[in-house]
Amino acid sequence: MTKVITISREFGSGGRQIGYQLAERLGIPFYDKELIKMASEDIEIEEHIFEMYDNAFMEKEEVEYTPFSHTYEVPMSDQIFIAQSRVIRRLAQHGPCVIVGRCADMVLKDEQCLNLFFYANLKKRVHRLLQLERLSEEEGKKMEKRVREIDQKRKDYYQYYTGNEWGKPQNYHLCFDSQKAGMEACIDAAIAYMAHL
Amino acid sequence: MTKVITISREFGSGGRQIGYQLAERLGIPFYDKELIKMASEDIEIEEHIFEMYDNAFMEKEEVEYTPFSHTYEVPMSDQIFIAQSRVIRRLAQHGPCVIVGRCADMVLKDEQCLNLFFYANLKKRVHRLLQLERLSEEEGKKMEKRVREIDQKRKDYYQYYTGNEWGKPQNYHLCFDSQKAGMEACIDAAIAYMAHL
Repeated sequence: MTKVITISREFGSGGRQIGYQLAERLGIPFYDKELIKMASEDIEIEEHIFEMYDNAFMEKEEVEYTPFSHTYEVPMSDQIFIAQSRVIRRLAQHGPCVIVGRCADMVLKDEQCLNLFFYANLKKRVHRLLQLERLSEEEGKKMEKRVREIDQKRKDYYQYYTGNEWGKPQNYHLCFDSQKAGMEACIDAAIAYMAHL
Repeated sequence: MTKVITISREFGSGGRQIGYQLAERLGIPFYDKELIKMASEDIEIEEHIFEMYDNAFMEKEEVEYTPFSHTYEVPMSDQIFIAQSRVIRRLAQHGPCVIVGRCADMVLKDEQCLNLFFYANLKKRVHRLLQLERLSEEEGKKMEKRVREIDQKRKDYYQYYTGNEWGKPQNYHLCFDSQKAGMEACIDAAIAYMAHL
């Protein structure tokens, strides 16, 4: 059985939720936003600043992302990435777990990981998100814009910190269309594959 | 259960063999080179000419590939693709089966198919091919060149006939690193996923 499962995913594909359920099925810890808290403790940055910078890269554009800011010798966003990577490596050493996002696949590239990538048709992702957020189909165009923007930021983040192409199958061991056969299908397939590791 | 399974694969990944074993496990027909014969009957081109053109695109460079040749109104290679596509659609209507290559995923894009893509680390693919062809590791460089060339031709073929990017996960429902956990792992995972369709 693989020690650590990393999850990368297109926004709205349900990859995070699949990761959570997969961790539950395997009886192992699941790490996502938790990482931020642990990492903030690690480098003694106040948590709210940490979250602000993190969101700036991953979700919003309210805070300008400045990889080579003049305020810090190592830019804040890079300090955060380094701290998170340290936490990810520490978690991986502790035992089997599921880690979502944060380039964990590349941070742990020398470890025995199983790297999963989840994607789905754009329309299906938009529809899923509208339902989750109880929004009407009229909000579709706005949601589609948001999905594209967040995907682009995930792509940029991955490219910037790993030098690799986000979503290229060769970076992962299994890639799933999460909406073709449903989330349970993905979990069952991942477990069936892992049984041979 | 899905009617038709299409398989795309990097050269040397073992995708064809996995497809064959998957068909056997499911008790359904498997189509690969068979298609060529069936298609040649379809358009009354002598089989050896057919194979020559087919190989020219897929394997060698001895016969120049001329999509817009002046010799034929519709170039031979395009006639062959059209005939093969017709055969693929006919097979899909007959019942469940596994079809390898020939852009079957796009030819059948309106059908209820499960589209699989197999890939693996270049070094592992070279090693596997050397073993299959009983060649020494000294032939590695030559084999690596051959693998790259054939992959490039598959990419070009797919791009030319479908307008899409070969190996982009969003074109398939499941993508597998065929060498991480072995072929059986891929077969089990595909079957586990299909059980939910």
